[in-house]
Amino acid sequence: MIKVVHIGIGPLGQKVVKYARERKGIEIVGAVDLDPQKIGQDLGEFCGLDSLNVPIMESLDDVLNEKNPDVAVVTTLSSLERIESQLKELGAAGLDIVSTCEELSYPWETQPEVAGRINETCKENNVTCLGTGVNPGFLMDYLPSVLSSVCQNVEKVRVSRVQDASSRRIPFQKKIGAGLTDGQFKEKEQNGSLRHVGLPESVYMIAKAMNWELDNVEETLQPVYAKEHIGSGYTDIGKNNPSGVEQIGRGFIDGEEKVTLHFRAAVGEEKSFDKVEIEGTPSFSSTINGGVNGDIATSAITVNAIASVTKAHSGLKTMLDVPVPSCFSEV
Amino acid sequence: MIKVVHIGIGPLGQKVVKYARERKGIEIVGAVDLDPQKIGQDLGEFCGLDSLNVPIMESLDDVLNEKNPDVAVVTTLSSLERIESQLKELGAAGLDIVSTCEELSYPWETQPEVAGRINETCKENNVTCLGTGVNPGFLMDYLPSVLSSVCQNVEKVRVSRVQDASSRRIPFQKKIGAGLTDGQFKEKEQNGSLRHVGLPESVYMIAKAMNWELDNVEETLQPVYAKEHIGSGYTDIGKNNPSGVEQIGRGFIDGEEKVTLHFRAAVGEEKSFDKVEIEGTPSFSSTINGGVNGDIATSAITVNAIASVTKAHSGLKTMLDVPVPSCFSEV
Repeated sequence: MIKVVHIGIGPLGQKVVKYARERKGIEIVGAVDLDPQKIGQDLGEFCGLDSLNVPIMESLDDVLNEKNPDVAVVTTLSSLERIESQLKELGAAGLDIVSTCEELSYPWETQPEVAGRINETCKENNVTCLGTGVNPGFLMDYLPSVLSSVCQNVEKVRVSRVQDASSRRIPFQKKIGAGLTDGQFKEKEQNGSLRHVGLPESVYMIAKAMNWELDNVEETLQPVYAKEHIGSGYTDIGKNNPSGVEQIGRGFIDGEEKVTLHFRAAVGEEKSFDKVEIEGTPSFSSTINGGVNGDIATSAITVNAIASVTKAHSGLKTMLDVPVPSCFSEV
Repeated sequence: MIKVVHIGIGPLGQKVVKYARERKGIEIVGAVDLDPQKIGQDLGEFCGLDSLNVPIMESLDDVLNEKNPDVAVVTTLSSLERIESQLKELGAAGLDIVSTCEELSYPWETQPEVAGRINETCKENNVTCLGTGVNPGFLMDYLPSVLSSVCQNVEKVRVSRVQDASSRRIPFQKKIGAGLTDGQFKEKEQNGSLRHVGLPESVYMIAKAMNWELDNVEETLQPVYAKEHIGSGYTDIGKNNPSGVEQIGRGFIDGEEKVTLHFRAAVGEEKSFDKVEIEGTPSFSSTINGGVNGDIATSAITVNAIASVTKAHSGLKTMLDVPVPSCFSEV
């Protein structure tokens, strides 16, 4: 049995708890959240499950003193800078860590100093820290890297994740800007609350897998505009109003575009798919028609990675370094 | 620089040498083959390249005494039993090992005793031994395992590798029975020279990834018959004559078919593709239209895995355990 403590019991954290609960071989021994309204509540009941006899605590110390967790699952923040002290505290306490923090998925180029400090703490305490999720962490970085394993040579990697958001949760539809006016979209874009986080990290992870030294990484973001009135989302979207977002991440060597990551999520998008195209020896493309449901997949890979971090070398690791998570029915 | 010795300079071994030669970060320091006609020849020239100043030697000792290789690439045999002493000799000499031996890809269920002995030798000498290739080793076992990482639950895995062999090498077309009479096909089937080796190993690797304990694994083999005259292969194939082979591997728990691996290679096959279907939460399928060219891919993944074994834990490992090989342009 792997003993797990959950740090952060927001919507994603709750889903991860539910999924972890369903697995044999994982024992949930603790939960931590700063929200006074959650503290003291039973974790299971709070997540809509049967009681787990695990109270949500305010501080990690409370859990460490009573239980002896092996792994911490951290679903608190997207910003690596803001999560650093949390991760170091967990590492110093001797816990392996799996986190959905997008910027942790491959921080070695974007924030090398923070990455170095987390790595040092983990090595000193002989534990592993991993950032994962469906994206970043799988579809647009790990999977293309895996697929390149059968190539003698790779000239270029192009990944497309295109999603019709009509059937996704309302918060997701809002997050991608569907139903906003152009002005509201721009405002949200500027304060950074709209973007999919992790595209540069994915570009760099692919480059690492190929051993490419990129000299330039770019990211663009623009609204997707409804071509006609759309009624399939959480709210009506008028013609020429934002129905979602399109982001493109690019990595260059000597002006040549080696990595292109195309992320597009919009209400009313005609076709959902995840596609990896490799140009090389051999060239081929791999397509998941309908795409992978992000809500399920991020929670699932987070739980699956719990076993991987217990088996990996110590330090701050990425998906490229750890054993295949895979979907284990029990550990 | 990773120093590599190549064991076995047959057609596959020659291609692996060519690919290894093209990579920065790999230095080919030795070659071993038992064939008296090859011994003493320059490895590069024998493989159709420029001279490598590496003579093909008769015994490993000759290489070990002069050079100090880090990794052995073994492309000699498909039978684990027959390759055991070779692998143990290499492990005892302190070399990490990558081999295309199909039965080595996941031998823990099919030949646990041999696997245990190889594992022991590797652990004693702090080296890693890995069996890989495009299939087994990637398309029908590793890739579906990787894809399952985004699943909370997997009910069933189905993998199809369907290939039109028209454009493949003549030896491959012959190997799958294209152009044989029914009687010749049966004869080759009975002496075991026709089958694709590794299907049960792939079934077991998937089961391991899911942590399923299979109670029964079956394998069937039958000819594919030409529906009409086929002129696209290395030889004319008359209507109703064998144009190739179809093998199906199945894994069961309590009578329920959990894993289905469908391998079909025939001259004149309408469509080539590699497809993974996962039934679970979520269900999805991933398709490579046109399929992955096996000749290129097996040699490429063998070279790519050279870096992986140098970074893995010691022992007999499988693709599930090692860092993602990926296509590195230099180590």
